[in-house]
Amino acid sequence: MTNLFGEFVGTFVLCSFGCGVVADVLLKKSKGEGAGWMEINVGWGLAVMMGVFAAVSTGAPQADINPAVTMAKVFMGVYSMSHALTTMVAQTAGGFAAGCVVWLIYLPHWKVTEDKGAKLGIFSTGPAILDPVANFLCEFIVTIFLVLGIFFIVKSAEGQTIPFWAVPYLVGGLVCALGMSFGGPTGYAINPARDLGPRLAHAALPIAGKGGSDWGYAWIPVAAPLCGGAVAFFIGRAIGIL
Amino acid sequence: MTNLFGEFVGTFVLCSFGCGVVADVLLKKSKGEGAGWMEINVGWGLAVMMGVFAAVSTGAPQADINPAVTMAKVFMGVYSMSHALTTMVAQTAGGFAAGCVVWLIYLPHWKVTEDKGAKLGIFSTGPAILDPVANFLCEFIVTIFLVLGIFFIVKSAEGQTIPFWAVPYLVGGLVCALGMSFGGPTGYAINPARDLGPRLAHAALPIAGKGGSDWGYAWIPVAAPLCGGAVAFFIGRAIGIL
Amino acid sequence: MTNLFGEFVGTFVLCSFGCGVVADVLLKKSKGEGAGWMEINVGWGLAVMMGVFAAVSTGAPQADINPAVTMAKVFMGVYSMSHALTTMVAQTAGGFAAGCVVWLIYLPHWKVTEDKGAKLGIFSTGPAILDPVANFLCEFIVTIFLVLGIFFIVKSAEGQTIPFWAVPYLVGGLVCALGMSFGGPTGYAINPARDLGPRLAHAALPIAGKGGSDWGYAWIPVAAPLCGGAVAFFIGRAIGIL
Amino acid sequence: MTNLFGEFVGTFVLCSFGCGVVADVLLKKSKGEGAGWMEINVGWGLAVMMGVFAAVSTGAPQADINPAVTMAKVFMGVYSMSHALTTMVAQTAGGFAAGCVVWLIYLPHWKVTEDKGAKLGIFSTGPAILDPVANFLCEFIVTIFLVLGIFFIVKSAEGQTIPFWAVPYLVGGLVCALGMSFGGPTGYAINPARDLGPRLAHAALPIAGKGGSDWGYAWIPVAAPLCGGAVAFFIGRAIGIL
Repeated sequence: MTNLFGEFVGTFVLCSFGCGVVADVLLKKSKGEGAGWMEINVGWGLAVMMGVFAAVSTGAPQADINPAVTMAKVFMGVYSMSHALTTMVAQTAGGFAAGCVVWLIYLPHWKVTEDKGAKLGIFSTGPAILDPVANFLCEFIVTIFLVLGIFFIVKSAEGQTIPFWAVPYLVGGLVCALGMSFGGPTGYAINPARDLGPRLAHAALPIAGKGGSDWGYAWIPVAAPLCGGAVAFFIGRAIGIL
Repeated sequence: MTNLFGEFVGTFVLCSFGCGVVADVLLKKSKGEGAGWMEINVGWGLAVMMGVFAAVSTGAPQADINPAVTMAKVFMGVYSMSHALTTMVAQTAGGFAAGCVVWLIYLPHWKVTEDKGAKLGIFSTGPAILDPVANFLCEFIVTIFLVLGIFFIVKSAEGQTIPFWAVPYLVGGLVCALGMSFGGPTGYAINPARDLGPRLAHAALPIAGKGGSDWGYAWIPVAAPLCGGAVAFFIGRAIGIL
Repeated sequence: MTNLFGEFVGTFVLCSFGCGVVADVLLKKSKGEGAGWMEINVGWGLAVMMGVFAAVSTGAPQADINPAVTMAKVFMGVYSMSHALTTMVAQTAGGFAAGCVVWLIYLPHWKVTEDKGAKLGIFSTGPAILDPVANFLCEFIVTIFLVLGIFFIVKSAEGQTIPFWAVPYLVGGLVCALGMSFGGPTGYAINPARDLGPRLAHAALPIAGKGGSDWGYAWIPVAAPLCGGAVAFFIGRAIGIL
Repeated sequence: MTNLFGEFVGTFVLCSFGCGVVADVLLKKSKGEGAGWMEINVGWGLAVMMGVFAAVSTGAPQADINPAVTMAKVFMGVYSMSHALTTMVAQTAGGFAAGCVVWLIYLPHWKVTEDKGAKLGIFSTGPAILDPVANFLCEFIVTIFLVLGIFFIVKSAEGQTIPFWAVPYLVGGLVCALGMSFGGPTGYAINPARDLGPRLAHAALPIAGKGGSDWGYAWIPVAAPLCGGAVAFFIGRAIGIL
């Protein structure tokens, strides 16, 4: 149970900072309006770092905060399937709660922002060019880079004492890099809880002048990262780093 | 007394760098004019790091440099209420001195800058959209993220030898993230001394072509962070990280 | 053989992130379109860090991921010439594979981007002002800064236990600095595998609306970095750091 | 003698990266043209880090690479005045050599850039608003922040084993912060060798279409940092950190 709570808190912190930086850049009259794509990527990188610290310190030393990572760990034998499923629900609930908090923090800005797509984009990802096969492929490949990237870092540390901050900081840098290098086509969900949780919040909350929650696209940032996490495990084993 | 002096010096260094980066971006003919919101956030993050080093090395190993953090530590039993109050006065005095130094460094630029609001914005924060309830709520929630974030980092380090630079560096990253993710609506004071000290300097200094110091708003970046610091303590205890 | 595989994987990861960040900035309708030169440099810095982790964890503890570095190590006696040559082939193959993956990730964006030069620029470097002598000189000098810079870092660490992440992280910072400071004239290939591998991919792949692969310039970012790596060795020995 | 050589190499590396990043942003047709003020500050921060590694690994473990720092150490008893003077000459010679290298790297770009002031600005600093008293005061105060900032970092580390990269990395962050926060009025020379060395190179080199080297201003970025270094020593002693 402490593990579930830690995953909830960690994903909540991750998505609060992450959705927050998109709100900062996209909402009208925000002091960060138009601050740009690089700030969004650095913000998501720091969000990962803080999310991991939050998860670790509230009972989840594994600190997945991402069902795609949890999926890879199912194949590694870390989780049973049922334990993994409850973990993923906890993570998604954290994402939902984060969507609510970001809405509160930016409360006066929703009604002065007309662009319905921008408002949805604060909560969940959408494709730059809608093409379900290519979008799925993109999220799938980029998640493989994420999960293998974590394996590369951890494997490189083998045999050393790892200071508490090293992995959270480096994985934050990895996610910043994933956004800058591969985020262009789909906005790099690469995490089902990060996309589905806040999308549910978008649907549920009384956001001023909101549009639809684009459920037609919502399956891609859920299914593709899960497939990517599983395939990353098999690649990792094949190349001898697991 | 050394603790008070360290808190004074640390908050002075914090606010000198912090108000300085806003001056750099907002003042006319500054080489950084228009450098943007991301530079402001990175600048404040580095300001926190340097402020903590300054406080630690001049007698304040706690290095709060923020009355909201001091408030949380009152509930933790670190300070008596009277010790906390004198600490907060020392911190605010550091913020005041910082405002004076930034005014000196940018001396030729005040008279070539017409925008009175920009000039005040270098010293103290203001809302993007004035809405006292929402502005208070924003400063309150974001301060909770700040104080809990510090607790997350420190708790994650439990049982390890912490190198001298780790916490200042990571808390600097946290403040940079808070600005990028949640700074949009109110400019993230999240620190009464950071807002009130330089605002008093703005009122006292003979700044060329200055306007009012907006005392009507000044209570929010003082009261909301103090409430946030207190509530962060109770949340931290409830979730078992204190 | 594990060394070759690690060099292949490391250079693949390096060039995937590196070419990816250029694609993100240059391709039309990418979410990062126009994000700018600083993002490209930070992205290449993080690409180096992740490439080194990938190489180290898949069997190449030397983690050159750059034939110019391998060349310097030939003179240092680390590699035989034939071992070095197969290593350089493995590195270039990694760069080729990276070009293919970046093409896949950004699949829908090639046909909406008209600029043939931008599309080539995602794969390989080109001069801002074509001047073969000056361009060669630039790549030559900047590679010397790269290889000597690595030597400076490693020599500074002499006699200390080096944590697993220190050199990858610092060399990533060095490459980011090289791009920001010296990347202006030629786009800082400073790595034959990083330029030739993806250029071959550009020539081989069915990229929508692509132009030529500019083979007339291709020898410079191969020959100049190799010369730079060799000369860096002799300078390093002359100034006593090898 | 090794100390002099290390100071020469370290200041050469510092100023090569530092002047390079300004060239990248200001020269016409550079790939970094217009990349902006934040890149300049990050570039100078990384330049400091690499300069310190270069100095340490070539015989100057003190790694001042700045006559203002050397001046403070004269008062600390680290140097005799004559040793300090030769050190400062070596540092300035490093800055001169750096100016020559940057001119070579950017060779084709000088003749396509018309702005004579921009070309000088790559080598040495100049005031945003010319006002000798205010400009002197600015360089004086900001150098005090630099030297005291180094003292704060080193003092905070007291009693701990300091890893080889910690101080270079953190002082790099400090210089980046100084630029972002206080660089607006004068371009933060805060280092006589960084300003005078490249200015001499500007005067000596056959730079296409260059203007004057602004010798009327040149004394300020030499004298003010030297005074700042000296005063920083006395403040540091007065507040008990030396």
